[in-house]
Amino acid sequence: MSRKTSLSGFHEWLPQERLVELHVLHTLAEVFELHGFANIETRAVEPLGTLLRKGEIDKEVYTVSRIHDTEAPDPTDTSRLALHFDLTVPFARYVTENAGHLAFPFRRYQIQKVWRGERPQEGRAREFTQADIDIVGDGALDFRHDIDVALVMAEALSRLPIGQFLIRINNRKLAEGFYRGIGLEDTAGVLRNIDKLEKIGAAQVSQGLQDELGASPQQAEQALALAQIRAEDSSFVDEVRALGVQNELLDEGLRELAEVIDELHKRVPGTAVADLSIARGLDYYTGTVYETNLVGHEELGSICSGGRYDALATKGKRTFPGVGLSIGVTRLLSRLFSQQLVEASRSVPTTVYVALTSDEDWSAAQDIAQALRTRGIKTEVATKAEKFGKQIRHADRRGIPYVWFTTSENDIVTHEVKDIRSGEQVPADPNTWLPPQEDLTPQIKQLDPTHAAAQR
Amino acid sequence: MSRKTSLSGFHEWLPQERLVELHVLHTLAEVFELHGFANIETRAVEPLGTLLRKGEIDKEVYTVSRIHDTEAPDPTDTSRLALHFDLTVPFARYVTENAGHLAFPFRRYQIQKVWRGERPQEGRAREFTQADIDIVGDGALDFRHDIDVALVMAEALSRLPIGQFLIRINNRKLAEGFYRGIGLEDTAGVLRNIDKLEKIGAAQVSQGLQDELGASPQQAEQALALAQIRAEDSSFVDEVRALGVQNELLDEGLRELAEVIDELHKRVPGTAVADLSIARGLDYYTGTVYETNLVGHEELGSICSGGRYDALATKGKRTFPGVGLSIGVTRLLSRLFSQQLVEASRSVPTTVYVALTSDEDWSAAQDIAQALRTRGIKTEVATKAEKFGKQIRHADRRGIPYVWFTTSENDIVTHEVKDIRSGEQVPADPNTWLPPQEDLTPQIKQLDPTHAAAQR
Repeated sequence: MSRKTSLSGFHEWLPQERLVELHVLHTLAEVFELHGFANIETRAVEPLGTLLRKGEIDKEVYTVSRIHDTEAPDPTDTSRLALHFDLTVPFARYVTENAGHLAFPFRRYQIQKVWRGERPQEGRAREFTQADIDIVGDGALDFRHDIDVALVMAEALSRLPIGQFLIRINNRKLAEGFYRGIGLEDTAGVLRNIDKLEKIGAAQVSQGLQDELGASPQQAEQALALAQIRAEDSSFVDEVRALGVQNELLDEGLRELAEVIDELHKRVPGTAVADLSIARGLDYYTGTVYETNLVGHEELGSICSGGRYDALATKGKRTFPGVGLSIGVTRLLSRLFSQQLVEASRSVPTTVYVALTSDEDWSAAQDIAQALRTRGIKTEVATKAEKFGKQIRHADRRGIPYVWFTTSENDIVTHEVKDIRSGEQVPADPNTWLPPQEDLTPQIKQLDPTHAAAQR
Repeated sequence: MSRKTSLSGFHEWLPQERLVELHVLHTLAEVFELHGFANIETRAVEPLGTLLRKGEIDKEVYTVSRIHDTEAPDPTDTSRLALHFDLTVPFARYVTENAGHLAFPFRRYQIQKVWRGERPQEGRAREFTQADIDIVGDGALDFRHDIDVALVMAEALSRLPIGQFLIRINNRKLAEGFYRGIGLEDTAGVLRNIDKLEKIGAAQVSQGLQDELGASPQQAEQALALAQIRAEDSSFVDEVRALGVQNELLDEGLRELAEVIDELHKRVPGTAVADLSIARGLDYYTGTVYETNLVGHEELGSICSGGRYDALATKGKRTFPGVGLSIGVTRLLSRLFSQQLVEASRSVPTTVYVALTSDEDWSAAQDIAQALRTRGIKTEVATKAEKFGKQIRHADRRGIPYVWFTTSENDIVTHEVKDIRSGEQVPADPNTWLPPQEDLTPQIKQLDPTHAAAQR
C-alpha cells in the first residue's frame, strides 16, 4: 500500500479496496451458509477475566474505560473491560451464556474485528478482521466434524481471488502420544519447541529440547524425525510406524489424522497435507490442528488456523467440545494489496450516471433512474445541467461506465446510453435496457503475479 | 427480549434474531448501492482530540489503553485513543486524510458499531450499530443532494419489516432566520430550548426562552408558533409567512425546505412532513435537518436522523460540505424484538439435512450435499447413522425443513426428501430437486402488532 495510515497498525481501505474485502467477506459468508453455519456477532468487549482465562496475557490486550474514570487502573481487577483479541474466547462465553437457546451441534460463523496491541508489521495489525467457523457440541462432538470444517474452509478459500493455498494438518494426540512413547512427558514443552522449527531450524530445536526438557540426543532426534514427516495421503502412517514408537494415544491420533487426510485427498486433492511439524501455540487444542499457507507467500505465516478443543467452554458439569478454523482476513488482504495481486474494476458501485439536459429535468431524471434500479442497475443522477462533456468527465473520473442522455425535440423524447470506455452511444429504453452482466457490479480481478512484480 | 445480557447495555442477538438483523443490513446495503453509495469502514478508535473536536464530551466516550499502561490517565492528553461514538466524525477524518484518493461528490455508506458509556435503557445501548449514508463535496455540494439522501432513506426504510415511519424535516436557516427576524440573536440557545418541546411541553419551553435568553413573552410565543407548524407539502410556507417575520436567511430556508418537501410529497407521499419543531442537538448542522419516527412508537425517539453540514470536514483552506442520515439499527431492532413485531422463520440457514442409512455412507452423503449446494440449497450432513426418527427429530429441533434419505436395495439407489413440517416424503434427484423459493432462505416475517400484543 502506498498510503500511510494515520494510526500505526490500524488499516483503513479505500473504497476500491473495500470492494475487494466485501467480495471476500460475501464469498465466505455464502460458502459458510451453504454448509449450514448460522451467523452471530458478539460484543467487542469482555471482562478481562474472561479474556485472560486461558493465560493469553502475551496478546497485549487493549483495556477500555469510561472517560470520566481518571484513577490509575487496578491491575488485579479482572472485571475491567477489554477489547476481544480473537473470536473464539467470546464465542465460548456466548455458548455457555445462551446454551438454553441454542440447538447442538451448533454451527456458527462470525466475521468481526479484533484488537491486539502488538508492534505493527506486515501480517500483524492492531485492528484486524477475522472470519471464523466453529461447530460446538453439547457433551460430545462427532470426530467427522474435524473433516467437515476443513472441507468447508477448502471450498471457501478456493473461491477467493488468492491463488493456491495449502492446509497443513496435524493431530495433538498423535504428537503427544509419540512424545510419551519416547519418554518425553512434558508434551506441551516439546510442542512449544517444535513450534519454532520453521523459525530457528532443527539444530537449535534439538538443543532446546535437550537444554530445556532434559531430552537425550536420541529423544530429540526422534521428536524431530516425527516433525519432518509430510504427506498428501495416509502414507504418513507407515512413516511414523517406521520410527518404532508404541503408544495408544499415538494410535488414536494416527487413525484420526489418516481419516481427515484421506477424505480431503479424495474430495479436494492438492489443497491439504498431513504435516507433523504443525504444533499451534494455543494450549486448548486437543486433537486435529490446522494451519494454512498461501503458496509462494509462506513467510506471511498462516492465513487460516484452528483445531479441535475438547473443553474450551464449560458450564458447571456440562462441557462443550468444538472444532473450528479462523481466517485472518486483514493479513490476507494486506498481502494481496501490497503485491498488487487483486483489484476491483472500479471504485463505485454505480453503473449508470443519468446526465441532465436542463436543470428542470432533475425530477424526470429521477424517474429514469428508478426505472433502471428496478432491474438492479445501480444509478446516480446528475444535479446540474452542465455541458455534456463535463458530465461525462465527471462520470469517468468516478469510474462509472455508462452515461444516460435524455433529449427532447418537438415533444419527442429520445433516450440514449453511452459506454464511456468505448465511446459507443446507442438508443435505449429505461424500462428494458440492461448492461452486460459484468458491468452490473464492480468485478474483482485476480492479477498475474509476474505482471504485478514487473510493475513494481 | 426475555434474555438478560451479561453486560448491561451490550446486546447480543441469538442466531434467529441475527438473521433479522442481517436481513435489515443487507436490504440497506442493497438500496444504498443501487443509489451509487460506496461502502467504507473506519477504524474503531480515534484520538480523543478528533472525537472531542465538536465539544461532544457529554457522549461518555470510552477510552482505550494497552493493558501494560498502568498509570493514571492524563485528562489533558488528547492523543489518547478512544472508541468512536458515531460514524460522522470518523468519516470526516477519513475524508480529509484520503481526499487525494477520492472522487467528489463522494457518496459513501458505512455500517458499523459505535460505543457510548451512557446509562442503558430501551433505545440506548452502550454498543450499537449505525447505518449511515453521506454525500460529501469538495468546496461545494449542490442542494439537491439534501433531497437525494432523504429519498434514498425513504426507499430503504420502506423496504424494512418495520411498518410505517415518518421523516420529519426542518431547516436550520429557516429557524435561525426566523429567530433573528424576531430579535433573538442567540439562535443556538433558542434551538436548544425548542429541542425540549416534546419532552417538557410549550409552557416550560416558553419559560426557558424568557429566563435563559431574556426573550419577551411575545418573542417566546412566536418561536413556539413556528415550532407548531407541520405540513405534508409546501403549504407550511404560507403559515410561516402569516407570522409576519422578515429575514433573508428565513427566505432561503423556506425555499430549501419547500423544495425538499414538494419532491418527497410527489415521489414518496405519506412518508415525510415539514415539521418546524425539529431542532437536532448537534451544532454542526447548517441547513436541512431530519428526524424519523416509527409510527406508533414515537416515544422511542428518532430511528433515522441527520442533516446538512457546510463544514464538518476541513483541510487547510479546503472545506468539505456534506449531507447525510444515520439509522440507529440496534435501537430499531430492540423495539421490534421486544414487542415481537418481526421474526425469522427458522434459526439456521440450512434447508436440507442429509440423513445417513449407515455410518459408511458419510462420504457419499457429502456428494449429495455438494450436488444440492451447487443450486444454492443450504445443506448439512448427519455424522451418525442413528434411527431415522432420531435424525428427523434432530433436524426438526434445529428448524431445518427437509430431510434427505438415500436407501439402496439390490444395488438400486433410491433418493427421497421429506418435508418434516407436512410429513410429505417424495422421490427426488439430488441433481435437479429444488425446494419452493421461500424455503431456500429463512424468511423474515413482519408480525401483526395486535396479535403480538395479545401474546404478551
